[in-house]
Amino acid sequence: MVYQIGKPIKTNKVLKIKLHDILIAFLFIAASCKAQSKAISNIKKSNKLEHPSLILTKTGVEKIRKQLGNVPVFDATLAKVKAEVDAEILNGIEVPIPKDYSGGYTHERHKKNFLIIQKAGVLYQILDDATYAKYVKSMLLAYAKIYPTLPVHPQTRSYARGKLFWQCLNDSNWLVYTSQAYDCIYNYLTENERNHLEKDLFKPFAKFISEENPQFFNRVHNHSTWGNVAVGMIALVMDDDKLLETALHGLKHDNIDPNARDNDGGFIKKAGQKVGFLANLEEPFSPDGYYTEGPYYQRYAMYPFLVFAEALQNVKLELKIFEYKNGVLLKSIYTLLNLTDADGNFFPLNDGQKGMSYYSRELVSAVDIGYYYSENKTDLLSIAKKQGEVLLDNTGLAVAIGIRDGLETPFIKKSLDLSDGKNGDEGGVAILRANGSKDELSLVMKYSAQGLSHGHYDKLSFSLYEGGNEVIQDYGMARFVNIQQKGGGNYLKENTTWAKQTIAHNTINQDETSHFNGDFETGSLHHSEKYIFDVSNSKLQIVSAKETNAYPGTQIHRTMAFVKDNSFENSFLLDIIKIDAEKNHQYDLPYYFLGQLMSANFEYTKSETLMPLGTKNGFQHLWKEAVGKTGTGNAKISWFNKERFYTLTSVVSNEDDLIFTRIGANDPRFNLRNDPGFIIRKQQIKDTYFVSIIESHGHYDPVSEIATNAFSNIKNLTILYSDEAYVAIHIENINHTESMFLFSFKNNSIDKKHQIKIEDKVYEWVGVYQLINNN
Amino acid sequence: MVYQIGKPIKTNKVLKIKLHDILIAFLFIAASCKAQSKAISNIKKSNKLEHPSLILTKTGVEKIRKQLGNVPVFDATLAKVKAEVDAEILNGIEVPIPKDYSGGYTHERHKKNFLIIQKAGVLYQILDDATYAKYVKSMLLAYAKIYPTLPVHPQTRSYARGKLFWQCLNDSNWLVYTSQAYDCIYNYLTENERNHLEKDLFKPFAKFISEENPQFFNRVHNHSTWGNVAVGMIALVMDDDKLLETALHGLKHDNIDPNARDNDGGFIKKAGQKVGFLANLEEPFSPDGYYTEGPYYQRYAMYPFLVFAEALQNVKLELKIFEYKNGVLLKSIYTLLNLTDADGNFFPLNDGQKGMSYYSRELVSAVDIGYYYSENKTDLLSIAKKQGEVLLDNTGLAVAIGIRDGLETPFIKKSLDLSDGKNGDEGGVAILRANGSKDELSLVMKYSAQGLSHGHYDKLSFSLYEGGNEVIQDYGMARFVNIQQKGGGNYLKENTTWAKQTIAHNTINQDETSHFNGDFETGSLHHSEKYIFDVSNSKLQIVSAKETNAYPGTQIHRTMAFVKDNSFENSFLLDIIKIDAEKNHQYDLPYYFLGQLMSANFEYTKSETLMPLGTKNGFQHLWKEAVGKTGTGNAKISWFNKERFYTLTSVVSNEDDLIFTRIGANDPRFNLRNDPGFIIRKQQIKDTYFVSIIESHGHYDPVSEIATNAFSNIKNLTILYSDEAYVAIHIENINHTESMFLFSFKNNSIDKKHQIKIEDKVYEWVGVYQLINNN
Repeated sequence: MVYQIGKPIKTNKVLKIKLHDILIAFLFIAASCKAQSKAISNIKKSNKLEHPSLILTKTGVEKIRKQLGNVPVFDATLAKVKAEVDAEILNGIEVPIPKDYSGGYTHERHKKNFLIIQKAGVLYQILDDATYAKYVKSMLLAYAKIYPTLPVHPQTRSYARGKLFWQCLNDSNWLVYTSQAYDCIYNYLTENERNHLEKDLFKPFAKFISEENPQFFNRVHNHSTWGNVAVGMIALVMDDDKLLETALHGLKHDNIDPNARDNDGGFIKKAGQKVGFLANLEEPFSPDGYYTEGPYYQRYAMYPFLVFAEALQNVKLELKIFEYKNGVLLKSIYTLLNLTDADGNFFPLNDGQKGMSYYSRELVSAVDIGYYYSENKTDLLSIAKKQGEVLLDNTGLAVAIGIRDGLETPFIKKSLDLSDGKNGDEGGVAILRANGSKDELSLVMKYSAQGLSHGHYDKLSFSLYEGGNEVIQDYGMARFVNIQQKGGGNYLKENTTWAKQTIAHNTINQDETSHFNGDFETGSLHHSEKYIFDVSNSKLQIVSAKETNAYPGTQIHRTMAFVKDNSFENSFLLDIIKIDAEKNHQYDLPYYFLGQLMSANFEYTKSETLMPLGTKNGFQHLWKEAVGKTGTGNAKISWFNKERFYTLTSVVSNEDDLIFTRIGANDPRFNLRNDPGFIIRKQQIKDTYFVSIIESHGHYDPVSEIATNAFSNIKNLTILYSDEAYVAIHIENINHTESMFLFSFKNNSIDKKHQIKIEDKVYEWVGVYQLINNN
Repeated sequence: MVYQIGKPIKTNKVLKIKLHDILIAFLFIAASCKAQSKAISNIKKSNKLEHPSLILTKTGVEKIRKQLGNVPVFDATLAKVKAEVDAEILNGIEVPIPKDYSGGYTHERHKKNFLIIQKAGVLYQILDDATYAKYVKSMLLAYAKIYPTLPVHPQTRSYARGKLFWQCLNDSNWLVYTSQAYDCIYNYLTENERNHLEKDLFKPFAKFISEENPQFFNRVHNHSTWGNVAVGMIALVMDDDKLLETALHGLKHDNIDPNARDNDGGFIKKAGQKVGFLANLEEPFSPDGYYTEGPYYQRYAMYPFLVFAEALQNVKLELKIFEYKNGVLLKSIYTLLNLTDADGNFFPLNDGQKGMSYYSRELVSAVDIGYYYSENKTDLLSIAKKQGEVLLDNTGLAVAIGIRDGLETPFIKKSLDLSDGKNGDEGGVAILRANGSKDELSLVMKYSAQGLSHGHYDKLSFSLYEGGNEVIQDYGMARFVNIQQKGGGNYLKENTTWAKQTIAHNTINQDETSHFNGDFETGSLHHSEKYIFDVSNSKLQIVSAKETNAYPGTQIHRTMAFVKDNSFENSFLLDIIKIDAEKNHQYDLPYYFLGQLMSANFEYTKSETLMPLGTKNGFQHLWKEAVGKTGTGNAKISWFNKERFYTLTSVVSNEDDLIFTRIGANDPRFNLRNDPGFIIRKQQIKDTYFVSIIESHGHYDPVSEIATNAFSNIKNLTILYSDEAYVAIHIENINHTESMFLFSFKNNSIDKKHQIKIEDKVYEWVGVYQLINNN
């Protein structure tokens, strides 16, 4: 937690002041000098905070009012929000006694209430129409009436039960939004009304989700971020610095048992761990802005992170929150936008639900706030334009004006490597993007840390996309969020028994066990190590990483590269896994291709009755549909999906089992998607390779009924040479061109010279890898 | 075949002249008076045919040239076609010796050749650029060089092998297109060149596909339509009336064995059957324009039907071909457009491949020709606008001008009943369309005749759509047209063993056998009988039909209705099947829902190993995933697909088996789609009912993660009363409203009075059905 003030005095020496120290010092002074403190307090009273000041400001509102009718996207959003709020005002105030889980009436009603009064508050400011202020006031008074006597929520599933909702998380959502509503009508209320609301509602509410639930509040977790921000937002409105300090740095005392876990199996708090908002910004974000839980949860946390940052920027400018950790908040917006496929859907790393995208309201906030607080990031405008709506505040106005004035530039997603971990040294996630003649191919390779309680056991796993289509899928999570019929919308049993297990992912399984034996505590200690990431040559983009802890005694080294070769219609994906083990093991490498099998170049026998592939660690969920073997050295399968053809060509031995699977066994309530998979299984082997190429080729048009380029371009794929330190992969194409890929496993420096001799011919190169092409 | 000339003289008496008789008379005169004939021929020579005259005419071309640059869609199509042809001209002429099946090089090359020279001929006319004429000429000369010595195609699979292609069908495609090219450059060629081409190429070509292949030419079948039109088109260009007569009425002698069959198992020709183009227009089309093979094949046949009609209209106006059979050709265009879902995809009745749509080139022709030869059918322009391209002829120009001038009106698909059979008395296909608050729900109920060799054994089957999404799917065919990897792109074994079988469809199976015992000959003798079709009330649209021949001794009477009830978000589908049998049987009723099961209201046990549901007649292809029973009287399953929820509620007894299935067993080469199904099975029962309701309800948004209206609205569904003649279905909703549907099975007159007594209460109504609603 380091701040740079002014310019560096010398090249290597900067004046560094820790923000934390500043606050500590401030508190010390405040506490030790009560009289002075009182004086300060009096100054504050006279110099008191303007309202609104969180996401709207007095001058901002004036600016907005002047622009009304001249900024199409802003005007459209305003009209939509007004229609929505007007309908709710007609419906009347409903503040039921809490009873239900999410999806149930009381839950959904309270959720709607906070979303609507936040909007009503904004409408009051922008439209200067007291109808909206009155509505917010009535709603707040209704809550203030029931809150003092409300017991803890009757549903008992959560490790931190709320009062309005079954978990403190949702209570915190409520307060984050409601604080904004309160801020908007602050001056509309009398002092008596404000005192009543603060005494009977906001203060006890903030106390409940913090002091009374330290296991919720004093953590590093997206839940706690919401809690910290809720307390921080209301602290800002109430101008309560002590409460703000709690929000920023957490409770001083919590007595949390270091072995305590939450409902997802995650630890509550490590001994000595820093907590509070700043710690939640510090620890889960890597310097590259990657949030360790993955994009689905990063998206969820972005709203409180950014809306609170916006409020702090408005009220506590001196905190320079957007510069914190080298501007990680603004960086994280770009990271998140880059963690999407061509349609804007987030890659479903860890427990991610497919279909969540940058069209979500959290990303509307993120893009608008990101644009406003960064300079000239006009590429964000092109995302905002697709979103088609903006925040009704200064940031949204700026975006809408930018769109109106045609300032947007394309948002170009590049190949990039995102480090994981607080200091960026706990592995990462690499995205390779290959522009072909058709849609872009995107590879997502994960060599990150565990990702907290939502992490999956899938070191060195990958997924592959073509445009917005999944080619090789990551399963995502086994949950139907907010769909009552499926376990009340919560995590399903199969999330643990299938989605988290290693076999559910496109990576190496050893002896039918998951990485780290599926143990969260062990997994949380480790991460994979990057070996190389190099996208400097657009014709050969490469990522390579090692995993040595998933299976003690076994090292897995995976290298994946997009190769653009003129003999091929599109870039192909080269996948090389080198395994070095101390003992013999069984290895399974699944590829969850999506679509229908077109052909295989080997004999296989389809089962007449289907049995599960195994009994545990996820294998029990796979139907064993067919098994084959080949003596040709290559297993090749082609499949068809969304009018396109794909082929996987793998180097295999005569002993390897080639297994076709389908997800869905031991799934008593049809909770799983019945998708296909293809597994290459090697048994009783120590050191070995899995080498494959995935091609996207051709097209089928069901209207013209014409199939083009429907076949693989690869005639033969071989490991021409291998030793401890090197591998040479030979690719022979059907048009008789050929190429060879050389790779060094032992030295990843970019200027190291390498030399190997294959069949009396000497090959020399500099750097980790080399592609030799004869065509 | 009846023509009305002038106005009726008396109410019930019209002057009727059979067109066929006119032609016979004409031929009689021509044949009996050779001298006169010669004289006529001489007149013709002097009065000889202008060129072009088939799809382009001299005046038409002049008109087109004048409009160039002023008609956007026409200009765009022209530019696209020009670019395509120019590229091929650069590529040079390739006329390989025939060798391959479809998908192979020689097949695809010859196919491309005819498509390109047709376009090149048109470009020559429109652009007046001899480059194109020269290209066509070179291509034709290349064909004239090889044709005289070409043997029959080396591939032997077809019942009618071609010379350029493996089947005469494709040779006929070639001639239909090539005739147009020849017409376009006719005047560019010298008389010697024309004589050479006609002598060495066109005349022997026409002879080969007609006289030398009567089993192909002298049939009523889409194959023969192509053959007839091919001969007819070249006859028109060559001004050869004798050949034209053969095209219109077939060969006089053929010696076809009445037991002979084609590759699909269809009979070649019934004894005494009329043949030739007019017979192919007469017999397979019903008076409503429904083509008995179904929309997928109707689409395929539309091009030759309409392009030849256009040519006849241009050259033989006196035939009044568009008025033939009460204007059935133009009517059939509307029929075909109505046989599509909201996205324009044809309903996959019989052997239909999904994805074929009104965006196909055949439908571009159909829409353009339809617009040009009908009056004020401006709704066709809205389809043409979606297609975004037009024919490069007079018809396409008219359409493009219409679009440019904004003349289009919406194409509104209505509920309609399409009779099947030459005389419209062989059952039919009903389409009910219910406009809801979201997308339109469409029911397709099939109670037609067999549909020739491409027919499926699925009497009284149905499929259900919401917008462009399948809710309850028809499987379509087991074939991947032109995809080499899958059986060379031909029909797969599973088309016979699965897709054609009754269990593959959403209709009643008796004793695990298919309708007509899967016998084509028997199936071809019968059709279902309409009982009622009434869409006069938009709140209750109904179709009802009976089948008595599929299972001798058993009558199946199915009634389906869309009901708009204010308690429901959307119209729901009521499905009532009454079975009257002479003996006890087992009945299976499958519903092939698409999507993921959300919930069931009964206990079921998922199988730990999967076995096929049966051993034959398609049952061997179903995995038995789970079986349940219920004592509640209702089986209810809900599923989720494409962000929507659906629920099937069925009246069941305690004994009924409730079976979850998945397609894919006994499918050794992964040829089938592994889709789910739900079967209600009643065993050892004689007379019985299957009564169900299908609801579409609610929505799930993966971005907001909000599920709305996710549950069924039906609390209880009961058969309150039933006897030989009546049934009363009672529907109780969760909001305590209720309704009752009364139906008479024995009298379908619309003014018959009915009365039944249920629990001492007398119900009276007029007409077949009545819905009583208490809310």
